[in-house]
Amino acid sequence: MASVRIREAKEGDCGDILRLIRELAEFEKLSDQVKISEEALRADGFGENPFYHCLVAEILPAPGELLGQGIGSKIIKKVAEVALDKGCSQFRLAVLDWNQRAMDLYKALGAQDLTEAEGWHFFCFQGEAMRKLAGK
Amino acid sequence: MASVRIREAKEGDCGDILRLIRELAEFEKLSDQVKISEEALRADGFGENPFYHCLVAEILPAPGELLGQGIGSKIIKKVAEVALDKGCSQFRLAVLDWNQRAMDLYKALGAQDLTEAEGWHFFCFQGEAMRKLAGK
Repeated sequence: MASVRIREAKEGDCGDILRLIRELAEFEKLSDQVKISEEALRADGFGENPFYHCLVAEILPAPGELLGQGIGSKIIKKVAEVALDKGCSQFRLAVLDWNQRAMDLYKALGAQDLTEAEGWHFFCFQGEAMRKLAGK
Repeated sequence: MASVRIREAKEGDCGDILRLIRELAEFEKLSDQVKISEEALRADGFGENPFYHCLVAEILPAPGELLGQGIGSKIIKKVAEVALDKGCSQFRLAVLDWNQRAMDLYKALGAQDLTEAEGWHFFCFQGEAMRKLAGK
């Protein structure tokens, strides 16, 4: 079985993080939405008031052998641990409604689909609409 | 027309913020989900690494006269302005699918419904499920 070590990301991981973001976006058929650069990832996550926090799973052996090895569960468990330590009462994930594998995993781990159960929708302001709103 | 001043929240606003959270939850038929105390709101928003940032709209005259006066648009415009200033490329809102008034407003202001357009669902871990995941 694969050996997994989960740790906080360092600034030097940003190249790998960007590669993984791109691989995920490709899987999600949303590659055109990835506009962030490695430089912006560094600035956003490792400045004085970071916009995001990130965990990294270091895995042995090679990625080809990993599906079904429970890496996803391990990361989610770690997120739950960190969140409780920081005083959070909940944490949320965004998942595409055709990604059955992910939804099955999250439900098996005890998550509730708030969009299905209560009708929550994501609304997003970006690009030109956002600049127009701000008068810029 | 109502006079509106939008400013950053202060710690002393937390009592009013909690009251407004409760009024919103009542409208959303989700009052049982409001478990936060004024004390927690103070700690989460005004400590060293705040969990949230908050804008407050100060309004004259009385609340009864306000519907349709454009307060919602003004707050969203302010959020767009703050977000751009901080280097954000987008911001998101969560809205219940039966809250037509809110959805119409957000769409009129240029938002996209990502749940409808791309199939994004909110998954939430909380309470016992979260503690079990963390082994606590």
